[in-house]
Amino acid sequence: MDLKVYINDVGKRAKRAASSMAAIDSATKDRAFLAMADAVRANADAIKRENAKDLEAGRNNGLSDALIDRLTVDDSGIEKIAKAISEIAAQTDPVGEITDMVRRPSGIEVGRMRVPIGVVGIIYESRPNVTADAAALCLKAGNACILRGGREAFHSNMILAKVLRDAGTQSGLPENAIQLIEVTDRETVTLLAQAVGLVDVIIPRGGEGLIRAVVDAAKIPVIKHFDGICHTYVDAEADTDMAISICFNAKVQRPGVCNAMETLLVHRDAAQRVLPPLFAKYRKAGVELRGDQTTRAIDSDVLPATDADWKTEYLDLILSVKVVESIDDAMDHIRTYGSAHTDAIVTNNVFTARRFVREVDSSSVMVNASTRFSDGGEYGLGAEIGISTDKLHARGPMGAAELTTYKWVVYGEGTIRT
Amino acid sequence: MDLKVYINDVGKRAKRAASSMAAIDSATKDRAFLAMADAVRANADAIKRENAKDLEAGRNNGLSDALIDRLTVDDSGIEKIAKAISEIAAQTDPVGEITDMVRRPSGIEVGRMRVPIGVVGIIYESRPNVTADAAALCLKAGNACILRGGREAFHSNMILAKVLRDAGTQSGLPENAIQLIEVTDRETVTLLAQAVGLVDVIIPRGGEGLIRAVVDAAKIPVIKHFDGICHTYVDAEADTDMAISICFNAKVQRPGVCNAMETLLVHRDAAQRVLPPLFAKYRKAGVELRGDQTTRAIDSDVLPATDADWKTEYLDLILSVKVVESIDDAMDHIRTYGSAHTDAIVTNNVFTARRFVREVDSSSVMVNASTRFSDGGEYGLGAEIGISTDKLHARGPMGAAELTTYKWVVYGEGTIRT
Repeated sequence: MDLKVYINDVGKRAKRAASSMAAIDSATKDRAFLAMADAVRANADAIKRENAKDLEAGRNNGLSDALIDRLTVDDSGIEKIAKAISEIAAQTDPVGEITDMVRRPSGIEVGRMRVPIGVVGIIYESRPNVTADAAALCLKAGNACILRGGREAFHSNMILAKVLRDAGTQSGLPENAIQLIEVTDRETVTLLAQAVGLVDVIIPRGGEGLIRAVVDAAKIPVIKHFDGICHTYVDAEADTDMAISICFNAKVQRPGVCNAMETLLVHRDAAQRVLPPLFAKYRKAGVELRGDQTTRAIDSDVLPATDADWKTEYLDLILSVKVVESIDDAMDHIRTYGSAHTDAIVTNNVFTARRFVREVDSSSVMVNASTRFSDGGEYGLGAEIGISTDKLHARGPMGAAELTTYKWVVYGEGTIRT
Repeated sequence: MDLKVYINDVGKRAKRAASSMAAIDSATKDRAFLAMADAVRANADAIKRENAKDLEAGRNNGLSDALIDRLTVDDSGIEKIAKAISEIAAQTDPVGEITDMVRRPSGIEVGRMRVPIGVVGIIYESRPNVTADAAALCLKAGNACILRGGREAFHSNMILAKVLRDAGTQSGLPENAIQLIEVTDRETVTLLAQAVGLVDVIIPRGGEGLIRAVVDAAKIPVIKHFDGICHTYVDAEADTDMAISICFNAKVQRPGVCNAMETLLVHRDAAQRVLPPLFAKYRKAGVELRGDQTTRAIDSDVLPATDADWKTEYLDLILSVKVVESIDDAMDHIRTYGSAHTDAIVTNNVFTARRFVREVDSSSVMVNASTRFSDGGEYGLGAEIGISTDKLHARGPMGAAELTTYKWVVYGEGTIRT
């Protein structure tokens, strides 16, 4: 198979489908989502059968238990997929909203209309539920999507895409609104990222290696979703109980996700009162602590942190801790080692809080709240395609609205320029 | 000189400057713009002297009269540059605006804060005034900028950048908020477009060759400013006088700019009543007409249009004309040959107007108005850096606000996720 021809054909079909999708009304789209959710439930046995093939291949190829776990689609997984799609039906359709409409001195009226981006390419790794989540969210925003899932989930992705496509088509969506790349050669990633004029944006979701490969190859815009190396800075004027509660929650509530805290920065004047009780709580929860010299002077059971620790997204019950001299020190550390994902301050001082908010350049900046809130659902965006660590177009949690763009709409009454 | 090291150093200085710029208040920025405008006027002689060097070199290298004209900075040009900068001082500062602030069920308050992008790279060709316009607009939005102007305007750009930099620094802006690449090797374009981690976005302004070269090399986001192949579609139900007035204005009022009409599409049922009087007006204004067979059957003096005509941005008193069977034909033509810049319909029928607005996927879509309105000033954005034909981040006219991004700001009261 000539992969270049194949990707080009997929792209052309997507472009035509995108043109039809843009004109489809909200009610039709929402009916399609409910039909898709039903179809996922109705095809549970077939989906589990195909998923079993991936699981067997994964075990034969020595995939870790954690990866096998992410790959597994059992009954509860199927229900989660179906529920997520039907929740997207209940969200507001972002397409068609007109904002900022003003009458100008020339007599024209001008405003911005929210419109679909067109063709969205999603490149992702092992979790099959992304196939359903990403497709539904792209369609909600009126786009066509091209999905390129990982090799490990090939059979699961194929059946899910087919079930969604069939249900969508029967509900009146264009046939090629959802397309899954049926070849898992690495080359298809490169070709998709170079499909100028056919694909409007690529969103890679996965490890740093995948994202770097996409960015290096890309000739079309990419919205990157890099790691979350999230910090909490406990200020000199932080409330002790609040600091302990927030820092515990940010690390322990769900350590395996990108908005969990990885590094705790504590002002020297707060370290003595905050760290000992906080460390006791962490230890009860099984958190491994790694700290700088000052931290270890306060608690000698803390392991020494190396430079690598400050740069690591543990995604695990491990925390690096550093005592800093000032908010400037804290912000320097965040600038140097952070990933511009989510960073929080705990303080009672409104001026310190305002400074942190202004000067920390991350996609989410928080005051007296747990970094775990950095999430499309928590922000009220509904389902999210991921959390962008990029600066252009969309920053932080990306919901359906972030999968749209705008055009200018101008009304005159025979108005000409003089 | 090792260009890689040079661009890397420029980028590092810009990144540091961007960090300071982000914290500078509006009043300081605006004072700096007024000081820059004064400095441009005060240094008029020196600027003209340096410009004369470029003009002499240009004439020796056989530049066309049109290019020499664009390159020339005379007294009126200096006044225009100064005035444009002082007008930017009068605009609203987009930075710091918080929108969409809501209280969520969890208790957090979350909203979006408008913030600078960081380091903006502008790559442009011959007009020296871009040096001043682009620098001031980038700074207005709180960014640092790296300017890479064309070889032909080298001396003019150097003196303008120096005058602006000195005035800015004396007014309290960071020294490296404006940097001009002092080497005009083509390689510096490539290196700038690959300065990952140092430059946040590249905006190329110029011909298609320049933009393609930037996109091909780029490893960082690019916002493209391609041609304007703008259409006006005169519907069957268009008012004759209005159609004539708009079509005349769109072509003739300023033919050399990207929002001038290049192709006129007329519904068959309107052609007989609109084209003859319109063509008479065009001919008086010296417009050369090229048309399809049906157009030429109506007026045999119209030259035959080839396929190349439909794809050409004339930027001149030339117009291609096509008679179409329906709005679908018109929209197909626009989809096939247009550049998604600005397209207009003239019609009395509100349903037809709404369909055109919904289905034409261009950065500006107009009803009963001249395409010449597609402009940051006319839309109320103030000065513009250009007109994006891209779909992501910014579409159509880009003002200071489009040179910013946002971050999420979250306030809690010790709020944790459960």
